[in-house]
Amino acid sequence: MMLAACLDRLRASSPLIHNITNYVTANDVANLLLAAGARPIMADDPREAAQITAGCDGLHLNLGTLSSRTVPSLLSAGQEANRLGHPVVLDPVGVGASDFRAETARALLKTVHFAAIRGNISEIRTLAALHSSAYGVDADPADAVTEDNLPSTLDFLRSFARRTGAVVAVTGKLDLVTDGVQCAVIRNGRPEMGKVTGTGCQLSALTAAFLAANREHPLEAVVAAVCAMGLAGEMGWAQMKPGEGNMAYRDHIIDSIYHLTGQGLEKGAKVALES
Amino acid sequence: MMLAACLDRLRASSPLIHNITNYVTANDVANLLLAAGARPIMADDPREAAQITAGCDGLHLNLGTLSSRTVPSLLSAGQEANRLGHPVVLDPVGVGASDFRAETARALLKTVHFAAIRGNISEIRTLAALHSSAYGVDADPADAVTEDNLPSTLDFLRSFARRTGAVVAVTGKLDLVTDGVQCAVIRNGRPEMGKVTGTGCQLSALTAAFLAANREHPLEAVVAAVCAMGLAGEMGWAQMKPGEGNMAYRDHIIDSIYHLTGQGLEKGAKVALES
Amino acid sequence: MMLAACLDRLRASSPLIHNITNYVTANDVANLLLAAGARPIMADDPREAAQITAGCDGLHLNLGTLSSRTVPSLLSAGQEANRLGHPVVLDPVGVGASDFRAETARALLKTVHFAAIRGNISEIRTLAALHSSAYGVDADPADAVTEDNLPSTLDFLRSFARRTGAVVAVTGKLDLVTDGVQCAVIRNGRPEMGKVTGTGCQLSALTAAFLAANREHPLEAVVAAVCAMGLAGEMGWAQMKPGEGNMAYRDHIIDSIYHLTGQGLEKGAKVALES
Repeated sequence: MMLAACLDRLRASSPLIHNITNYVTANDVANLLLAAGARPIMADDPREAAQITAGCDGLHLNLGTLSSRTVPSLLSAGQEANRLGHPVVLDPVGVGASDFRAETARALLKTVHFAAIRGNISEIRTLAALHSSAYGVDADPADAVTEDNLPSTLDFLRSFARRTGAVVAVTGKLDLVTDGVQCAVIRNGRPEMGKVTGTGCQLSALTAAFLAANREHPLEAVVAAVCAMGLAGEMGWAQMKPGEGNMAYRDHIIDSIYHLTGQGLEKGAKVALES
Repeated sequence: MMLAACLDRLRASSPLIHNITNYVTANDVANLLLAAGARPIMADDPREAAQITAGCDGLHLNLGTLSSRTVPSLLSAGQEANRLGHPVVLDPVGVGASDFRAETARALLKTVHFAAIRGNISEIRTLAALHSSAYGVDADPADAVTEDNLPSTLDFLRSFARRTGAVVAVTGKLDLVTDGVQCAVIRNGRPEMGKVTGTGCQLSALTAAFLAANREHPLEAVVAAVCAMGLAGEMGWAQMKPGEGNMAYRDHIIDSIYHLTGQGLEKGAKVALES
Repeated sequence: MMLAACLDRLRASSPLIHNITNYVTANDVANLLLAAGARPIMADDPREAAQITAGCDGLHLNLGTLSSRTVPSLLSAGQEANRLGHPVVLDPVGVGASDFRAETARALLKTVHFAAIRGNISEIRTLAALHSSAYGVDADPADAVTEDNLPSTLDFLRSFARRTGAVVAVTGKLDLVTDGVQCAVIRNGRPEMGKVTGTGCQLSALTAAFLAANREHPLEAVVAAVCAMGLAGEMGWAQMKPGEGNMAYRDHIIDSIYHLTGQGLEKGAKVALES
């Protein structure tokens, strides 16, 4: 995989990414995109969502702090991005936590094609069940991905990727990315990233940026985004000084993306391909 | 008081805290909860507020950036948490600044039982006046708490705590906590914390987390939260380097919570009990 | 110009600034205002916007993450501030990006008098075109301000300032401020500030604070705000350590405002006056 080229193209093209995302982590998402060389716009009103998307290069839809006010924005922006051929990324934050999020996710899956879907394993399993009621009996949605259940998890993800036509990325202890044919298992990252709010949202936005800059190579683009975020988690952790905690770590992660080069990404990525 | 045990139980149980809170400080609130070992969820839409609360262990309602859209969420989540016996904390941010906030606070006081109410002295005095129009002539709502007016302030707070059934916490130069019977006077903290936006919101969320993990000991739980925040303010200040200002301080405070142990809290807390 | 006195008066009077602003950068705006010695309030609901403004000393209206819900708040708060003689600052974030923002900006320009308008050159050109359809053929809205096109840009800004009665501030590689008569060219700042989200929003809020504390000297107040932000960008950059990126820089900038004195501002400001 040409991960270096993916990041180099991102920095060279500086894509404009439209984010309809939660207010908890919007600032971190914006700074992460800037750190990676992309440019962020946040706009969530139904009166402008589609028009803003039309002027951008990629779209990131995020269900955190979902609002009735912005559901029409998610749908209209997603459809406009599809019409124009812009990549759209879905982050189904907490989709299993309420009927409202589940119904919104179902409506999105029905009417918008996603270039990529990124979540934790529980969110992705919930999404897959929503997508097809014929999906039948499922593993425990809370099942963490381990080396032991890796083959069956990969089968499940490959099938979900095929049915949706999206590159599916699951992040957790191990990160898995598949386009329905090839699967990448990524072993970057640190468990302490779970103590920083918004690293998932940041990764979803970064995925949209990598896809916008690498349209011909969607699988590689998503793998590059996932590796970059995990690697930044490792680089940021190495910068931790005594007394520093999750706030300092949050900044070190984004600052590591700021300094990450294509070559550095290529060298630090821990990817294994399985087909 | 067993403050060490309160924090140890919080870290051991990792309660999920639902926050309906302002967008100015939501990110800091989320990271503060993570630093303390709790887990945050923010969700404010009327279509999901009660359902999200049902899946959590505690609820934090905050009137900052109050919106007409989310008033029904505050009410329905509060009532659902009451029904399920989850502790609910009210932070009446700026309740004296508009009729809208005052009316919302009055509606909340009428229909939701709060395990704790936390604000500055002016907010708490306004709230008390709203709670009972029979309360009559009041001291200047802007009166700061001083060593001189401490006895009369404690009388006032004790009475308000009895009438609401809430543990009442007033933070400022001195911090006061009472359940209507016992009163704790806390002398932790630094005046420079007032230069960091959101330390009050963070404390209210932390109070919900301490209460969720220590349901049998509400007074101690609130005292532990107030002491922890003040102590983090002292520890964070000790980490300040030349050139650092309120942004660095903000991070040092949360990072200090990240490293705070039960024993450290017990040792650093400056509490005097009066009954 | 007495820039030192402007900042000294701001720190001495500690004005309360009402911000109706986007959720992406609201936290940074609040901390920046605190760093400068002002006090922030964010409130955007139509049910309280005008009343909150009435209790404040200045108002900052920002079109980022514009919402249908808050358009009436922008209008009513702006009009109330005008009625009471409080300075109002407009930040037309992304006004060229959607019809919704353009229509809202047009409605604001029609019904609210702004003490100052601050944006990048593209936003200000769009705003000027909206203000007067008679404005006719315009330079490319994307034209950056350079030493070469400085005279014609100053003419354009002077004319826009006269027509609106606002002090107009354009920030970019060069910063320009004019009240329609005098023009200030400011050469503070660093290009890396563009990699930090929200430095523009922060400057707009800071401008409202400087105006509130220096009502007799609007031009100087705006020049002082622009110089202070640019100087903080230089001071913050000087604090950067190896490995630090845009997140650390964000904090260094605000922390530099925290430590900035009137004398330091006077000494570090790079202003040239042209009339």
